[in-house]
Amino acid sequence: MKIGVLGTGMVGEAIATKLVAIGHDVVMGSRSATGEKVVAWAKATGKGKAGTFAEAAAHGEVVFNCTNGTATLEVLKAAGAANLKGKVLVDVANPLDFSKGMPPSLWVCNIDSLGEQVQRAVPEARVVKALNTVNCEVMVKPSLVPGDHDLFICGNDAAAKAVVTKILKDGFGWKIVHDLGDIKAARGTEMVLPMWIQLMGVMGGPTFNFHLAH
Amino acid sequence: MKIGVLGTGMVGEAIATKLVAIGHDVVMGSRSATGEKVVAWAKATGKGKAGTFAEAAAHGEVVFNCTNGTATLEVLKAAGAANLKGKVLVDVANPLDFSKGMPPSLWVCNIDSLGEQVQRAVPEARVVKALNTVNCEVMVKPSLVPGDHDLFICGNDAAAKAVVTKILKDGFGWKIVHDLGDIKAARGTEMVLPMWIQLMGVMGGPTFNFHLAH
Repeated sequence: MKIGVLGTGMVGEAIATKLVAIGHDVVMGSRSATGEKVVAWAKATGKGKAGTFAEAAAHGEVVFNCTNGTATLEVLKAAGAANLKGKVLVDVANPLDFSKGMPPSLWVCNIDSLGEQVQRAVPEARVVKALNTVNCEVMVKPSLVPGDHDLFICGNDAAAKAVVTKILKDGFGWKIVHDLGDIKAARGTEMVLPMWIQLMGVMGGPTFNFHLAH
Repeated sequence: MKIGVLGTGMVGEAIATKLVAIGHDVVMGSRSATGEKVVAWAKATGKGKAGTFAEAAAHGEVVFNCTNGTATLEVLKAAGAANLKGKVLVDVANPLDFSKGMPPSLWVCNIDSLGEQVQRAVPEARVVKALNTVNCEVMVKPSLVPGDHDLFICGNDAAAKAVVTKILKDGFGWKIVHDLGDIKAARGTEMVLPMWIQLMGVMGGPTFNFHLAH
């Protein structure tokens, strides 16, 4: 499948590298197609390609937003609404604000969410919020955390959620994916982050996840 | 142990009844000591006593705040700061606002929390936020949910957290209790509620809980 990955940070690199490894045709998008990180990534993978945000978006049938939440809306502008029209847009970002100390706050929450802002910014994309409640290494290798543990997704388009669930399960190895409903449920999955970050301190690292016992 | 329970709703009734059943000396506090609900509860338990908020607070070495979050600060005023001085105050409430439809929002979150507001309202009480992430039946009978699943507590006073953890484990039957740190961590545990309520819809009921896989 043709997939675009927006963002060259730890999250973008983990997801793009995994997608290449499982046989997808991936363009990683950066501000510049000749940026150091994106070029190094493409070379390291052999098969991955470097591009601009717009090129990655145009390339993908599915596009992963792996940018820092603070940069997300600006990056989507650079990617271009036309390039994202009809595409499945997987929003992995969180609106974390560390500027006020610990625990971090969210710069949008409660009566809105970054997921909803993304959907409003590109209304013709089919946004699916996913993977934002786990560390980037766990995202693509859930077996790093022992036992059963779960992902939570949401979005307005059922077919888009089915596409993403298939990648998460067959591609990344997730066993349990809960569909929380429409994109408004992103409020809930993003608001888990303050507790997640407290837990990272308590657990001594990010290699943990929630399992829904029921 | 002498325990006060503020609130006669489902949460107060579940907790007060369990505390009586495991041998504690419990006063359930209500607006009036002759209120219909609190009198019926005392009669039903045989050993439980009915009182005002102030009487329940004065009675307890440990006091459970089981009021609706919207009423909590007013009830604490009625209970009286002097009656809560030095006491372990277990804050079970959530600042849920259903007035704007689903998913509900929180009337305080992100850079403050109800737990912190409670601690500020009664600065000489030793506030421990606990139990607010599970349904009231699960609070006092965790075995209703199969498998391992966890509680999250926080507060500024380590000895108070130890007292509460002992009640949760030895009294209520909880096996896993994570201490998230000081009372600011209540932001995190309260902000889980919007996702919890979405999950209640997805799971078809409130009998579920989170387990931290690690």
